[in-house]
Amino acid sequence: MKILVINPNDSDGMRGLIAQSCQAVAFAGLDLEVRCAGAGVASIEGFHDGALAAVGVLQQVARGEAEGVDGYLIACADDTALDVARERAAGPVIGIGEAAMHAASLLGCGFSVLTAQQKSIPVLEQNARSYGFSYQCRGVHALGMPVLDLEHGGDPALQRHLIERGEAILQQDNADVLVLGCAGLTALQPELQQALGVPVIDGVRAGLLLVQALVQAGLKTSKRNGYQSRAVA
Amino acid sequence: MKILVINPNDSDGMRGLIAQSCQAVAFAGLDLEVRCAGAGVASIEGFHDGALAAVGVLQQVARGEAEGVDGYLIACADDTALDVARERAAGPVIGIGEAAMHAASLLGCGFSVLTAQQKSIPVLEQNARSYGFSYQCRGVHALGMPVLDLEHGGDPALQRHLIERGEAILQQDNADVLVLGCAGLTALQPELQQALGVPVIDGVRAGLLLVQALVQAGLKTSKRNGYQSRAVA
Amino acid sequence: MKILVINPNDSDGMRGLIAQSCQAVAFAGLDLEVRCAGAGVASIEGFHDGALAAVGVLQQVARGEAEGVDGYLIACADDTALDVARERAAGPVIGIGEAAMHAASLLGCGFSVLTAQQKSIPVLEQNARSYGFSYQCRGVHALGMPVLDLEHGGDPALQRHLIERGEAILQQDNADVLVLGCAGLTALQPELQQALGVPVIDGVRAGLLLVQALVQAGLKTSKRNGYQSRAVA
Amino acid sequence: MKILVINPNDSDGMRGLIAQSCQAVAFAGLDLEVRCAGAGVASIEGFHDGALAAVGVLQQVARGEAEGVDGYLIACADDTALDVARERAAGPVIGIGEAAMHAASLLGCGFSVLTAQQKSIPVLEQNARSYGFSYQCRGVHALGMPVLDLEHGGDPALQRHLIERGEAILQQDNADVLVLGCAGLTALQPELQQALGVPVIDGVRAGLLLVQALVQAGLKTSKRNGYQSRAVA
Amino acid sequence: MKILVINPNDSDGMRGLIAQSCQAVAFAGLDLEVRCAGAGVASIEGFHDGALAAVGVLQQVARGEAEGVDGYLIACADDTALDVARERAAGPVIGIGEAAMHAASLLGCGFSVLTAQQKSIPVLEQNARSYGFSYQCRGVHALGMPVLDLEHGGDPALQRHLIERGEAILQQDNADVLVLGCAGLTALQPELQQALGVPVIDGVRAGLLLVQALVQAGLKTSKRNGYQSRAVA
Amino acid sequence: MKILVINPNDSDGMRGLIAQSCQAVAFAGLDLEVRCAGAGVASIEGFHDGALAAVGVLQQVARGEAEGVDGYLIACADDTALDVARERAAGPVIGIGEAAMHAASLLGCGFSVLTAQQKSIPVLEQNARSYGFSYQCRGVHALGMPVLDLEHGGDPALQRHLIERGEAILQQDNADVLVLGCAGLTALQPELQQALGVPVIDGVRAGLLLVQALVQAGLKTSKRNGYQSRAVA
Repeated sequence: MKILVINPNDSDGMRGLIAQSCQAVAFAGLDLEVRCAGAGVASIEGFHDGALAAVGVLQQVARGEAEGVDGYLIACADDTALDVARERAAGPVIGIGEAAMHAASLLGCGFSVLTAQQKSIPVLEQNARSYGFSYQCRGVHALGMPVLDLEHGGDPALQRHLIERGEAILQQDNADVLVLGCAGLTALQPELQQALGVPVIDGVRAGLLLVQALVQAGLKTSKRNGYQSRAVA
Repeated sequence: MKILVINPNDSDGMRGLIAQSCQAVAFAGLDLEVRCAGAGVASIEGFHDGALAAVGVLQQVARGEAEGVDGYLIACADDTALDVARERAAGPVIGIGEAAMHAASLLGCGFSVLTAQQKSIPVLEQNARSYGFSYQCRGVHALGMPVLDLEHGGDPALQRHLIERGEAILQQDNADVLVLGCAGLTALQPELQQALGVPVIDGVRAGLLLVQALVQAGLKTSKRNGYQSRAVA
Repeated sequence: MKILVINPNDSDGMRGLIAQSCQAVAFAGLDLEVRCAGAGVASIEGFHDGALAAVGVLQQVARGEAEGVDGYLIACADDTALDVARERAAGPVIGIGEAAMHAASLLGCGFSVLTAQQKSIPVLEQNARSYGFSYQCRGVHALGMPVLDLEHGGDPALQRHLIERGEAILQQDNADVLVLGCAGLTALQPELQQALGVPVIDGVRAGLLLVQALVQAGLKTSKRNGYQSRAVA
Repeated sequence: MKILVINPNDSDGMRGLIAQSCQAVAFAGLDLEVRCAGAGVASIEGFHDGALAAVGVLQQVARGEAEGVDGYLIACADDTALDVARERAAGPVIGIGEAAMHAASLLGCGFSVLTAQQKSIPVLEQNARSYGFSYQCRGVHALGMPVLDLEHGGDPALQRHLIERGEAILQQDNADVLVLGCAGLTALQPELQQALGVPVIDGVRAGLLLVQALVQAGLKTSKRNGYQSRAVA
Repeated sequence: MKILVINPNDSDGMRGLIAQSCQAVAFAGLDLEVRCAGAGVASIEGFHDGALAAVGVLQQVARGEAEGVDGYLIACADDTALDVARERAAGPVIGIGEAAMHAASLLGCGFSVLTAQQKSIPVLEQNARSYGFSYQCRGVHALGMPVLDLEHGGDPALQRHLIERGEAILQQDNADVLVLGCAGLTALQPELQQALGVPVIDGVRAGLLLVQALVQAGLKTSKRNGYQSRAVA
Repeated sequence: MKILVINPNDSDGMRGLIAQSCQAVAFAGLDLEVRCAGAGVASIEGFHDGALAAVGVLQQVARGEAEGVDGYLIACADDTALDVARERAAGPVIGIGEAAMHAASLLGCGFSVLTAQQKSIPVLEQNARSYGFSYQCRGVHALGMPVLDLEHGGDPALQRHLIERGEAILQQDNADVLVLGCAGLTALQPELQQALGVPVIDGVRAGLLLVQALVQAGLKTSKRNGYQSRAVA
């Protein structure tokens, strides 16, 4: 099984963190590749970044199709270019934001999302609503930090801050699962889950597992309606 | 990893079909057990059967907890006793109806469900709505056949009938994914998918993969709100 | 007219409180019976209790059918086994949680629910949503007390506490009706309504009136789709 | 107990039919009055008629308050001036459209509505949605006949036509309860229910029972938010 | 182009403020008339006022039709008698509450509404929901002041109070657009927008522009279903 | 007032049709420019085309900002890159699909959408839902023709076909307004409206009027949350 993980931004540090989390849950024998989109966007913070990155994601999917990739994971919590990639790919395509919300809805009665920047809140709220999780998603909250600052997850002060915010958010929202709404938080999932005592969902791990599962089940993206491929010259 | 699959009804033929589909997607080295609920319900057709079977599901989960089971799959498309099992279990619990709908929502723009009996339609509609798939679930349809008759899936006439109904339903609902809304159809997934040319989701395969994925990711059922365990004497 | 009120738990104290509230609103000449489910559950606090109690509710309905009962009231705010009972009964079946929410939606612009335990919040939220009251139900709140402690409603400190919580909840939710989300609070309805100056809905009274009204109107549970009776040996 | 039933239109024939259905379900000793709104609207067919009738309904409620009326029933399926009447009245106010939909939602998995004129369909659809019954209300259909023609319900051809339309609608909507969406159909409820074999809900009967029940339970309209009474000179 | 703006209440001061805002955005050559409904309601605060005013609005529309009016604006944030006016008029009819919410939904990710009185909150919430803005409308808040007190908008203390409430509401609701939910606030839009740094929507300006736009586009109210005109003697 | 209309595809024929419709509703003295996005996409048929075109739309907005443009219209019914453009622009940005749906919701009780290709149906359904028009949008239908074939609108056979489909769709959906879901149909609006006897909404006209209205009212895109501009080097 050959899976391509696309990091929509071009941060190699982020790519490394994503690759580590993927390795932690890869099936035995998985042919795994983690690539940056290559569109020249350092981090995805809002719609403008997302639009530029989308073209890079699309190019990576096109390259993946030529290489016989079986399934794709888009490793940004905004699920950058998800519909576009589904139209282009034969196999399943999963976004990490989507994967985390699906997993969260299966493990508790309601979840809260914690993302990096205030600016991303409407995007994630809109995604939750579009996926069907209006009820389960109790709130989306921001740390108020640039995405790339989260790469330095080893900082104990940052970890303490995250644990305190996480607990406060669960209380405020009366939620019982925490979704990490930024790929930059992927490395911190184990510590946060340990400290908070509830499921903490990292979409990178959840998403890679989900796409592997769909491929394993012999399932591909439907080409009947919206995702039918347009002839590409 | 130790997974317990619970067949809420007590049909051993059904149990065999479920076990076969599970084997097809089991992770290497999985310790897999498929058991009937043992509550004396031959097939689940409606609320009455579901209530009786629920007690059996609960007993199997209690036994599973004692045996160190890591995750559970409830193998009835009605997702019998799902909340109850989540309250009792430490690990994740997935229902096959739920698993199939989640998978379907990731592979297309809208799905139709095909179940055995007219009587099950409101149950599945209500579940789709409760999970958040009011938009994605375009219609729930019944074959008008008893559940146990579906065990004899090898019958070519039945297969042709299913393919015709499946195609008609996709047209009528303008859907692009077909969900099999009955565990009795599990063995027919490959043929149906082949014939219809769209993803056909069997919740048994999808569900076993999903529960394995959640366990692999180190995720358990949240015990903070609704699923906190009551002290059991 | 013969009505059977089923107390899903086996607390005889609770049964007595329920019977008193029922007597207060019984039609002249009503043949009223209030029985415990007999499934051995002392109080319903969560899904596990509910699943066990469901079998008892079902047995009481079966017995009621044999005795010519015209309608049923299930006297737990979780509306334990409501669908199951509807499938089994010919006449109408009402749950007290459901009855209270319907009544509340007819008397104000939005209602709040006050229940006993934190654990019941997701159940009641989910029920409100399933009945169609996502908009009208402004919040579900818990006292943080065991259900059975509420039987001692005569305690003036408890009454003062309830009045203060009730007022605070109405303010917080911008609601104008209070729903009592636990049968254990039934005896306190008059005092609470008097003190709060808004409608306070006790589902036991509302529910018995509702089921009497449906029987009086000659209405029964539809047997066409989901609630059609399965042949019972 | 003193209940005032207001017929928003000024058809005395309609008033007579309404009074008969009310008598059929009146509590023993009920002080029942059925009055036309007196605003000069012969039948309510659309928004214009409704606005004129609203002033008449309001005047009847004001008169009723002076006479010590305990509760009100508004006997038009459009629930003419329901909010206005609630603001003016101390006791509960119920509309027959609303009452029928509430009752229908308690007796089956989904209901269809049959009204007189095409023009009323959007009004009833909007009401169903506003009350919370988007899911339960499977369709609203029109006979394509003027409201007042329905007064002559004794015509066997009309009855046959209604039975055929009713059955067709239930099939088309996959519904199991039929709501009569016009007061003019009130007298035909018993025959229709008998013929269709499912609950057929007449809002006049259901509504009078509901308002009696709320009064009996000591419940009034909340005066805390939207329905607080404005000082009236 | 001939537009009639109807002020549902009979405050001439309010009429003057409305006319000023209309003039500020009138198309060149617009034949603009601003009239009070003439139903004798000083200000619209709740359902009772609205029902009386509705008859006046209807009479003004009837007069407008006779005079060849091309489009109508109803200048109360409750959108008094909007459906009624649409049924009676040939051209488009817009309410200022509706216009403001539509505009707000086009300029940001979520809006808050600020109205005069607590009593209007449920009306505006219900309208937002009915128009489709359940998601975009993050909260409706009241100043707790009589509508007519807002006419004296020149008072600096009132302006400061409004700016502080506006900012607090945006924070609390995580909203980025403010809707003025009362025609009495129309004159203050420029100052509030300047001070708050986000779009502040005055429905009078937005509504007049919208109705002019619809007339300019050659669009009228559909007469096919709910708004078909009833024959008027 | 300076408005830039961006045609996301690079068809100059389409640009000409769009410009004609814009001229028909331009305010006196409007400085109007209609440009193709220049991203090399001949027509937008699905997500892939949309992603490529988005970058072109973004470049045109950036250029427009440098030129002092006051407001933007995106002239593709898919509302290509709407969020992206809002983030980049100071003034209001409107999409023609969005404009048409808003206008339709103001003129009738429910609308149907007619687009060119089957593949666009899920995109338009999803947009309708995201804007809040789940209830008002009764159906989205496709002609089954390539977008660019619609440029030849003068063909009488095409016009007859459109009128027949339009009438059939309104019947099927019980709708009273028709939305043209493709810019290629813009020139045919007058004929279709004339023939169908209901409002037929062309988003190009509706959208240009709407963006002019918002600019005239002094309203810009909110920069507080999701649309705050990222610093652009």
